[in-house]
Amino acid sequence: MKQVKNNQTAVFALGGLGEIGKNTYAVQFQDEIILIDAGIKFPEDELLGIDYVIPDYTYLVKNEDKIKGLFITHGHEDHIGGIPYLLRAVNIPIYGGKLALGLLKGKLEEHGLLRKTKLHEIHEDQVVKFTKTSVTFYRTTHSIPDSYGIVVKTPPGNVVHTGDFKFDFTPVGEPANLTKMAKIGEEGVLCLLSDSTNSEIPDFTMSERKVGESISNIFNKVDGRIIFATFASNIHRLQQVVEAAVQYGRKVAVFGRSMENALTIGQELGYINAPKNTFIEPSQLNKLPDNQVTILCTGSQGEPMAALSRIANGTHRQIQIIPGDTVVFSSSPIPGNTLSVSKTINQLYRAGADVIHGSLNDIHTSGHGGQEEQKLMLRLMKPQYFMPIHGEYRMLKMHIRLAADCGIPVENSFIMDNGDVLALHPEEAGVVGKVPSGSVYVDGNGIGDIGNIVLRDRRILSEEGLVVVVVSLNMKEFKVTAGPDLISRGFVYMRESSDLIHEAQKLLAGHLNEVMERKTTQWSEIKNEITDLLGPFLYERTKRKPMILPIIMEV
Amino acid sequence: MKQVKNNQTAVFALGGLGEIGKNTYAVQFQDEIILIDAGIKFPEDELLGIDYVIPDYTYLVKNEDKIKGLFITHGHEDHIGGIPYLLRAVNIPIYGGKLALGLLKGKLEEHGLLRKTKLHEIHEDQVVKFTKTSVTFYRTTHSIPDSYGIVVKTPPGNVVHTGDFKFDFTPVGEPANLTKMAKIGEEGVLCLLSDSTNSEIPDFTMSERKVGESISNIFNKVDGRIIFATFASNIHRLQQVVEAAVQYGRKVAVFGRSMENALTIGQELGYINAPKNTFIEPSQLNKLPDNQVTILCTGSQGEPMAALSRIANGTHRQIQIIPGDTVVFSSSPIPGNTLSVSKTINQLYRAGADVIHGSLNDIHTSGHGGQEEQKLMLRLMKPQYFMPIHGEYRMLKMHIRLAADCGIPVENSFIMDNGDVLALHPEEAGVVGKVPSGSVYVDGNGIGDIGNIVLRDRRILSEEGLVVVVVSLNMKEFKVTAGPDLISRGFVYMRESSDLIHEAQKLLAGHLNEVMERKTTQWSEIKNEITDLLGPFLYERTKRKPMILPIIMEV
Repeated sequence: MKQVKNNQTAVFALGGLGEIGKNTYAVQFQDEIILIDAGIKFPEDELLGIDYVIPDYTYLVKNEDKIKGLFITHGHEDHIGGIPYLLRAVNIPIYGGKLALGLLKGKLEEHGLLRKTKLHEIHEDQVVKFTKTSVTFYRTTHSIPDSYGIVVKTPPGNVVHTGDFKFDFTPVGEPANLTKMAKIGEEGVLCLLSDSTNSEIPDFTMSERKVGESISNIFNKVDGRIIFATFASNIHRLQQVVEAAVQYGRKVAVFGRSMENALTIGQELGYINAPKNTFIEPSQLNKLPDNQVTILCTGSQGEPMAALSRIANGTHRQIQIIPGDTVVFSSSPIPGNTLSVSKTINQLYRAGADVIHGSLNDIHTSGHGGQEEQKLMLRLMKPQYFMPIHGEYRMLKMHIRLAADCGIPVENSFIMDNGDVLALHPEEAGVVGKVPSGSVYVDGNGIGDIGNIVLRDRRILSEEGLVVVVVSLNMKEFKVTAGPDLISRGFVYMRESSDLIHEAQKLLAGHLNEVMERKTTQWSEIKNEITDLLGPFLYERTKRKPMILPIIMEV
Repeated sequence: MKQVKNNQTAVFALGGLGEIGKNTYAVQFQDEIILIDAGIKFPEDELLGIDYVIPDYTYLVKNEDKIKGLFITHGHEDHIGGIPYLLRAVNIPIYGGKLALGLLKGKLEEHGLLRKTKLHEIHEDQVVKFTKTSVTFYRTTHSIPDSYGIVVKTPPGNVVHTGDFKFDFTPVGEPANLTKMAKIGEEGVLCLLSDSTNSEIPDFTMSERKVGESISNIFNKVDGRIIFATFASNIHRLQQVVEAAVQYGRKVAVFGRSMENALTIGQELGYINAPKNTFIEPSQLNKLPDNQVTILCTGSQGEPMAALSRIANGTHRQIQIIPGDTVVFSSSPIPGNTLSVSKTINQLYRAGADVIHGSLNDIHTSGHGGQEEQKLMLRLMKPQYFMPIHGEYRMLKMHIRLAADCGIPVENSFIMDNGDVLALHPEEAGVVGKVPSGSVYVDGNGIGDIGNIVLRDRRILSEEGLVVVVVSLNMKEFKVTAGPDLISRGFVYMRESSDLIHEAQKLLAGHLNEVMERKTTQWSEIKNEITDLLGPFLYERTKRKPMILPIIMEV
């Protein structure tokens, strides 16, 4: 990057600005690059069939020798999910908290990457030193234990990344380290990168402890079975459920792969504590009276294949809803999932369960701080420059207003698009260039092999379907020797549309004879003749525009 | 319906119970059927390419001679949108308020049905008499003018349908007729069918007048252009925008077909009042200073083709966002539209506009009453039996709890599935049977011709794409004479996947030779051989399962 001066520190937004998920940032001073997080984005509806979206790693591949390491703020998918793909591109060591590394290990194992990757567990009082830069950490509170903010010390000044955070003064785990944050602020922050997720929420986010009280109230009141759905990674929430179950004499059966995994890791690492025999096997469930049963499961977002969705629609192998069951959604639906959550709730009511959900029941709290917490972070860190991160554009914009209220001039705040490079120095700062960026699609085994053409085809196929026209031509005598035959998929049900198909065949047959009389030898021309005739005919008759795929066989 | 006794009145749920949209109910006493509303449902995402969903009209077709008329509660799409399809099935007269009929006329004109349909305008003090039954009305408040509740008087007792309602004591149009509702209740209500949409909302819904104050505040403060997006059918809202514009010396330009239509009808019928020259043509916009401009447009739900979405993404022919513009979303996103609304807001911010949205700004209110209003309706009507309508299952369930709080025993409340028939008599009531029900899909010109097979195909095509295998066989000599050729759409981009395609071809070619040696003459067997070989091969290589379409040409 010739635009970044030798005395400047650069921040690269490789993914995550103006969108939720791909969170990947890099801080570079001269020949030392510190990477922070490597997330994954779940595709929106229009990315038909795509499994994940990851950032473009081109800049990192080109500068692999400069990368000192990847530092992970916490163990959520949108911060660590990209790591297996990143590690296929570059071979770099990884630094992270105990839980984040615990969750990452399983992921790397699956991808066959565990052995060749160097993993370093970090602690809050540690300084990771490189030649020109060094990295330190401060404990934050979030909806997963072991969350850290990261300080990258560079000669022009310190760059601070908050990770995802809220200020929970009465958390279930350890509290955020306000003292250390104040010290970091006092030492001087050149630039703060801060979580913007809840910048449109005016309130201070409710404490996890309060959710615990609501959970306890539910366990106190309910007589039947309790089916409790929440995010598997919210280990503190799981611990609170386990505590309530123990207090009220219930056993806990666990359903859903990620939930089982989280409880195993949580117990191994000491985040989940339960007396012996608290957890039971699914097979033991029927031996217990209803008021001694807790079912802890995945599916609080209405995910179609998760345990709760299968319980709700009656396809779960081991659990059927019985009257008296109480289902708790300890979650709030993320925007794209509102409909599927609602569908699951409806199915549960229909099956006879009572359902506890929604913000009115204080049964969930966000992992992200609201406006007052974002301002508290700004007042503690007192940064010279400010970059709102994590969130949609509207949220970044609002975060800049909050920063302005806290005395950071708007011209010192930067909303950067993915790929933008911010050059920083106490005397000047600005976006100086762009590195390759954008979305890389992962579909099955393929990384980046699905492009816009394939997606466009999938879109047309999904809405209008397909008509294949097969015809055999004798190109010496210029005659149609067989066909045209029409085959439809996703357009009309062929058995019930034989009139339409016959008419189209007749029309095409007549026209192809004419085309042959012209002695056309250009295949593309013949194909166009088929498409241009059939498309308008089908549209007139059906008001649909299927994809038309002419297949010509030469005999 | 032999199960309904001769002295009972039956209520048919033809559409709309446990779902939002298809609202269609029938009240029958002996040989007289009163139909109430004929709505349309907008398809959920999994109904790929489907335009609308309508109820199954089979029961109505079979009993066409008994139908006295269709009575419309108000002019929203989910209450009148099905009428053109209903009128193709049965020829019946239609009764409705002035505005509902005004909106319906345009729709019938489009479908070529206007001339053959008898339309009767209703008034609140009117009684429509048939031989054994009669119908009266009472004025309600809702987010569209001219909304009515409907009373069907039958010998066993009166059946009351609320339509959609809230209790707005300071509405912009005429207030709800509480006096008449109290009288109807005093006279006796055998069964109340009541709107459940907001049964999960504890509050009393905010008055439209309050929204007017917020609009006025915005017009008072803003210096640049105001781009105001809302529901076209919310005529009172439009009137309030027009009033604010006039008060603060702005002209109004209108964009979006449904908005233009609503303003034309609203002015014709006297709901929209504006001094001469308030409305201007788009071409005049550039001649006015920014602080004299109001742009009133569609697109408040982020609909991709609506005016506001095109303004936001820069593809509108006449309007570009300029710094200083303020865009007002006078709406709240319905659950399925959250993401597209958010996308539009982000685009507007990026383009430099300020955006006012969200409940915090008091810039929108629901047309449906919350829990307190639903209880007020129950207390006024004092029904013997109760049927919650309009809303998802969870909302119907909650509405029954509210009714129980108001003294209606739970065993007197009925949640009915579509098709259920409730037989009513002061001495007994119960669900006695079922008529044909279900969802009929409208796609382009086709009504009901898209079934599950076509939808399943569209789903596979959308997520995995398609591979066509073409091969010519000589079935006399049992030889492959041409091919196999592979063509892919939506699966992989063929130019970049030539290795994969070649390998698959080679594999298939070898196998087809073997199949020919077996002298197989069954085409279906040959096709299965192709699919069974190619499917697993492609899955192993790509982890994708495209639809495989073998096409065999015989030479």
